[in-house]
Amino acid sequence: MTPEEARAQFPVLERFAYLNAGTNGPLARTTVEAVVEQNERDLVEGRSGMDYFHGMLDLREDVRAGIAAVIGVEPTSVALTDSTTRGCALVLAGLGLGDQDEVVTTDQEHFGLTGPLYATGARVVIVDAEEDAIVNAVTPRTRLIATSHVLWTTGRKLDLHRVREDAGVPVLVDGAQSAGAIPPDVGALDFYTVSAQKWLCGPESTGALYVADPERLRVKSPSYMSQDSYETSGQFVPKEGTKRFDSGWIPVPSLRGLEAALATHPEWRYERAAAMAARCAELLSARVDIVTPPGHSTLVSFRPNGDPAELVESLHAQGVVVRELPGRNLVRASCGWWTNEDDLQRLAAGV
Amino acid sequence: MTPEEARAQFPVLERFAYLNAGTNGPLARTTVEAVVEQNERDLVEGRSGMDYFHGMLDLREDVRAGIAAVIGVEPTSVALTDSTTRGCALVLAGLGLGDQDEVVTTDQEHFGLTGPLYATGARVVIVDAEEDAIVNAVTPRTRLIATSHVLWTTGRKLDLHRVREDAGVPVLVDGAQSAGAIPPDVGALDFYTVSAQKWLCGPESTGALYVADPERLRVKSPSYMSQDSYETSGQFVPKEGTKRFDSGWIPVPSLRGLEAALATHPEWRYERAAAMAARCAELLSARVDIVTPPGHSTLVSFRPNGDPAELVESLHAQGVVVRELPGRNLVRASCGWWTNEDDLQRLAAGV
Repeated sequence: MTPEEARAQFPVLERFAYLNAGTNGPLARTTVEAVVEQNERDLVEGRSGMDYFHGMLDLREDVRAGIAAVIGVEPTSVALTDSTTRGCALVLAGLGLGDQDEVVTTDQEHFGLTGPLYATGARVVIVDAEEDAIVNAVTPRTRLIATSHVLWTTGRKLDLHRVREDAGVPVLVDGAQSAGAIPPDVGALDFYTVSAQKWLCGPESTGALYVADPERLRVKSPSYMSQDSYETSGQFVPKEGTKRFDSGWIPVPSLRGLEAALATHPEWRYERAAAMAARCAELLSARVDIVTPPGHSTLVSFRPNGDPAELVESLHAQGVVVRELPGRNLVRASCGWWTNEDDLQRLAAGV
Repeated sequence: MTPEEARAQFPVLERFAYLNAGTNGPLARTTVEAVVEQNERDLVEGRSGMDYFHGMLDLREDVRAGIAAVIGVEPTSVALTDSTTRGCALVLAGLGLGDQDEVVTTDQEHFGLTGPLYATGARVVIVDAEEDAIVNAVTPRTRLIATSHVLWTTGRKLDLHRVREDAGVPVLVDGAQSAGAIPPDVGALDFYTVSAQKWLCGPESTGALYVADPERLRVKSPSYMSQDSYETSGQFVPKEGTKRFDSGWIPVPSLRGLEAALATHPEWRYERAAAMAARCAELLSARVDIVTPPGHSTLVSFRPNGDPAELVESLHAQGVVVRELPGRNLVRASCGWWTNEDDLQRLAAGV
């Protein structure tokens, strides 16, 4: 697949310099076709019967294997979820965190992580988003380090393997801005979330959670998909491996769409996305203050000269789609393997 | 809208005697058109920008108001969820149930209720699915009664208002087989779940949770949709009313589809569905043992003469869609306002 062929899968790119995969990725024509086809099937055939049900289960396994391949882990270590928020909540509940515990996080996290964290009642220790600061904040009461692989604000990538090794406590990774964007690197990390609607270009409300050792995490929010068998009391035999954390039904059209989306990714995805992010920073650096360190991620966050919200709106009017980071005086461009020079030139011209 | 017009909205009814809304309702052509239209919009316009985001928020409120109208409550008392399972989990976590507590439930509940219940660690007291048995099981340690308005197995309707009044403890209602199927009757009940993909004929993974008094339930699994504002620590100001329990992003195509589905329901929905269920029982009663008490619900559960799974399969081959209730030796037909005499005759002929 050439870069032109890869890009041609996404109709939105014909109209916009679409640089916001950090919120929602562009949709490929084949992805929407798969969604529509399933909807039309369900319209005339109904959403019932053994073929329907077993087809749905098979699709879940296809999608699980596809996401596992993206992050370089075994499918048996992957639960299907609807979001990174859900993945974080599953881990926090499963660890049974309470007000006797401490969790270390950074000041650059998304509410999808910090909201569930705060709600546990644990003492949340907030440090600068920097490896040493995280490690140094760990105490004997620290049950978990919870942070992002790539920070959604600054685009900085943290060396979480060093953090994991030096701190010696479990690490929950918000992978929303890394899974599918940068080369997979789960390694010895304990929990890793995937938002499939972003860098994997999947339908909304699709995602996953990697759990290294499912036996050490309790199933606190079981769904029908969590169990192999159950009693009248609700007592259940959990599914083998991390599947037990599957967070619920995923619409069959969404499974079909995600399956199609996973087939759109070229082999050279990471090199190209990194190159485009580097080029983006290069083009913008003459005009604005770039916050993202070079070579860290596919995000390029910058401090605009004027009001960020106004700039985002003015860019949108010129067909350039980026986003503001509220309260941080930053604008963020997301560069994917589908991004081309023209997109970046249009952005630079508008800034 | 005449019964013929109402029925003509659902293409699946041209091919099948589709009698399984208790699993997934039939889809209307307008519902799928709305889903497809949004997907095609997102394909070319992208899933980003203020118009997109505010449009999504507006759609959520439309759908919230629509579901609130179905169950006869105020929209401010309704949270949008993806399932009854999620609704139950939200309530159980929000009450902070633990191993010092007792919950009373029945032996006829779905895993979507009993699974989350078991996972709390509370003592689960299981009684016959009958009002007096429930009330008599309540002790000073009972924190909650958790049961269905209409039992998914037998189709029996429980008088939960009597239970609530006599027991004097909060009641969590699994409304999966009642919301949209029988006239709304939330009254003094505390928590009530809605599965919108069943009797409301909505897209998969849509639903709601009614909470009478949101101030008395903690937000233990906040989503981005739960908060009005938040701090770096994750501390947040919850949304006004029950909206704070919104369980996460709902795909915009699903919101569009559900909005369309809510517009398909005729005013005479409940009378017609009840009449069809009565007629179904009448036709079947000459051949099999009907388990569902007359006048209780839109489900007709019966004990077949042979193997239930074989009967369901044989009916399916004849174009009649019903389901087996595993482990209970029952087959269940779901009668909606879209059901007609011919559907029921085909079922009766096949049994």
